[in-house]
Amino acid sequence: MIKVVAKHFMKVDRIHEFLERANELIEASLKEEGCISYGLYKDLNDSEVVTMIEEWKDMAALDNHKASEHFKRIVPSLNEFYEREGEINVYREI
Amino acid sequence: MIKVVAKHFMKVDRIHEFLERANELIEASLKEEGCISYGLYKDLNDSEVVTMIEEWKDMAALDNHKASEHFKRIVPSLNEFYEREGEINVYREI
Repeated sequence: MIKVVAKHFMKVDRIHEFLERANELIEASLKEEGCISYGLYKDLNDSEVVTMIEEWKDMAALDNHKASEHFKRIVPSLNEFYEREGEINVYREI
Repeated sequence: MIKVVAKHFMKVDRIHEFLERANELIEASLKEEGCISYGLYKDLNDSEVVTMIEEWKDMAALDNHKASEHFKRIVPSLNEFYEREGEINVYREI
């Protein structure tokens, strides 16, 4: 199982707009083959931080996701909502 | 549900020692009331990064965890294995 933690530093006044657009990505991604979970999380101590935490069956499923129409259309369009560059970590359980 | 993502920047030559000690923390934590999941993950692109990803039923369960004997004994003792300060985010699903 592969976990992706994509931490974003938001323009806090545009989080609501971001959530609307990100929701389309979440709904489409959850329907994908090999998607175990895919959700957005808000940091309880830092209102700037919103993080997507994803679980994929394997790397092939994650690669398919990144090649999907909805990923290629929506993910680049989310950049306007970020205050600065985020951090993306791709993990395998030890 | 509360998710904790605790990202650590390791002394790569001491990861093996770290894993032995961290394993005791993982086993004890998984037995705690309200612990949904508790696991260690290795970044596939950065050998320095090892991250604990935890899921708790609610904040009370996480607070109990941080007050537990094993947490108070083991967590501080892991600092010797870190190259620099890590990042800990506590999340709630949106």
